[in-house]
Amino acid sequence: MKIKLSAQLQLAMISAALLCTSTYAASMTDPLPSWNDGAAKKSIIDFVQTTTSANSPQYVQPDQRIAVFDQDGTLWVEQPMYTQVMFALDRVQALAPQHPEWKTKQPFKSLLLKDKEAIAKFTLKDLEQIMMVTHTGMTVEAFHEIVNDWIAKAKNPRWNRPYTDLIYQPMLEVMNYLRANDYKTYIVTGGGQAFVRVYANKVYSVPRDQVIGTAIETKYSYDQKGNGVLLRMPKLLLNNDQAGKPEDIDLFIGRHPHAAFGNSTGDQQMLEYTQASDGAHLMMLVHHDDADREYNYGAKSKIGTFSDALMAEATKRGWSVISMKDDWKRIFPFDK
Amino acid sequence: MKIKLSAQLQLAMISAALLCTSTYAASMTDPLPSWNDGAAKKSIIDFVQTTTSANSPQYVQPDQRIAVFDQDGTLWVEQPMYTQVMFALDRVQALAPQHPEWKTKQPFKSLLLKDKEAIAKFTLKDLEQIMMVTHTGMTVEAFHEIVNDWIAKAKNPRWNRPYTDLIYQPMLEVMNYLRANDYKTYIVTGGGQAFVRVYANKVYSVPRDQVIGTAIETKYSYDQKGNGVLLRMPKLLLNNDQAGKPEDIDLFIGRHPHAAFGNSTGDQQMLEYTQASDGAHLMMLVHHDDADREYNYGAKSKIGTFSDALMAEATKRGWSVISMKDDWKRIFPFDK
Repeated sequence: MKIKLSAQLQLAMISAALLCTSTYAASMTDPLPSWNDGAAKKSIIDFVQTTTSANSPQYVQPDQRIAVFDQDGTLWVEQPMYTQVMFALDRVQALAPQHPEWKTKQPFKSLLLKDKEAIAKFTLKDLEQIMMVTHTGMTVEAFHEIVNDWIAKAKNPRWNRPYTDLIYQPMLEVMNYLRANDYKTYIVTGGGQAFVRVYANKVYSVPRDQVIGTAIETKYSYDQKGNGVLLRMPKLLLNNDQAGKPEDIDLFIGRHPHAAFGNSTGDQQMLEYTQASDGAHLMMLVHHDDADREYNYGAKSKIGTFSDALMAEATKRGWSVISMKDDWKRIFPFDK
Repeated sequence: MKIKLSAQLQLAMISAALLCTSTYAASMTDPLPSWNDGAAKKSIIDFVQTTTSANSPQYVQPDQRIAVFDQDGTLWVEQPMYTQVMFALDRVQALAPQHPEWKTKQPFKSLLLKDKEAIAKFTLKDLEQIMMVTHTGMTVEAFHEIVNDWIAKAKNPRWNRPYTDLIYQPMLEVMNYLRANDYKTYIVTGGGQAFVRVYANKVYSVPRDQVIGTAIETKYSYDQKGNGVLLRMPKLLLNNDQAGKPEDIDLFIGRHPHAAFGNSTGDQQMLEYTQASDGAHLMMLVHHDDADREYNYGAKSKIGTFSDALMAEATKRGWSVISMKDDWKRIFPFDK
């Protein structure tokens, strides 16, 4: 009995030692290896430590650990055009044989003729029309399959790689780091919720119910066998951009986030709302200033506009601006 | 060394034995002790075993284990009036001093005079007006506090207990049993999302982001300090009833549920949509046939109508009807 007890104790001590070693090893491993040392990286690590150390005065309860991420320009490349718009343009080509009337009907005519001059002049209404014909009029399952097939094959012309390869390695590390510290990570995108849900789990480890996006109405109906189906209707339900972002965060989550990441004027209200949470919070904006490795754009870009007013707001409110050029050691997972 | 190794082995064997015992014990413990043995109870246990046993042909992947529950009449008492309507009526009394015009303005006048005859004749528009003045015009946080204070004090007149005591013990057991088997449990209620979120975690262990309900619009604005706030607006955004239930399930979850529990005509489409999922599914309706321990109502009740058409649909589609009287050994947690 004595021998057994001592062996048990010895085992317990070995276990404890192993546990300490692994905790020590974890704390010594850099959770953000693709980030250069600097203010941006430090603010992320400080935030996580401040909100998750049990004895911290700014400790955040696990059920309140919410982090939100814009997608286009924050998690993946949005230039020269949003990926979802590329999808819509490809769909118009694919659907053209079923729509002979498009040969003479704008905006489809210009699109099918690949008339770049006319396309550049498309109005918001033209784009809306293109989005609606390519995104509605089918069941939610059928749309999912269409996007799934497209995203597996389509390639970004500059890198000649699938769009889902063009994700930012440093941001994946932030998401993983937050999740490892019991943060629930949501995508809050101006892009289509149903579009992003198709690949979000595979690409970002964000499950469908944590994707908040622009959403159209669906209509409950029945198929020929009498089974319940949902049809995608050409009517906007949620415009998840600007003020729509905090409004939809409340609708879907019911809490203020404690961390928010964006890159353009469409993210301002989301960051403001995050800052209005009790206790510690982290607001960051990705600044695309790296023409060499990605793009350099800002106030003058129509896509992903980082206006001077947004920069002024960031300075006034003390938000962190991430310089892609200076803060990121590596841009894409495929970079060495 | 030999002794140590053998002690280790001995420990390993003891651990293994303990593990087996606890697995055995768990499988022998009744997960639904408040249910009488019968078809309803069996269908729940069969469903869980069929969808979670690794070698089952109808195994459901953990990320697809979604179970949805109506609230009023399915998880708690809805008679003689929905709890949220009781809240609204109490709020009219509380707000009356700030609204002297209500003394002469309908429907408020009748309410303040407690004119039962007039109240019984309220139109849908009257009720909407009452809901809007009591549920909108404040920040989301202020509304949360108002409901939180009310629900802590208000009592159901028949049982003289808080409304949150009047929850069905057998349904709590179903929720726990499903969660223990990696099902994510959602409330999908015709009631107000913001109202139910106040107590759902405490009462049902359902966090805020798993409460889907009728929702009004919010408007992003700023308080006097320039902090972002959301104001509750008198405009319906989601009517989470009937066809709205599957539509909102897609919006919030993005998947078909595999299990759905309801009790009235408002739940039919949610059950149909659940049945349209791939693989095994479970559709159940609580039937209030126990006047002695709770209520006996059905097709003729305005609240929680279980129409003859719904009963016919349940029969046709093979849904389980739970008899409160016969299937439930115990109704409330406080019952002995």
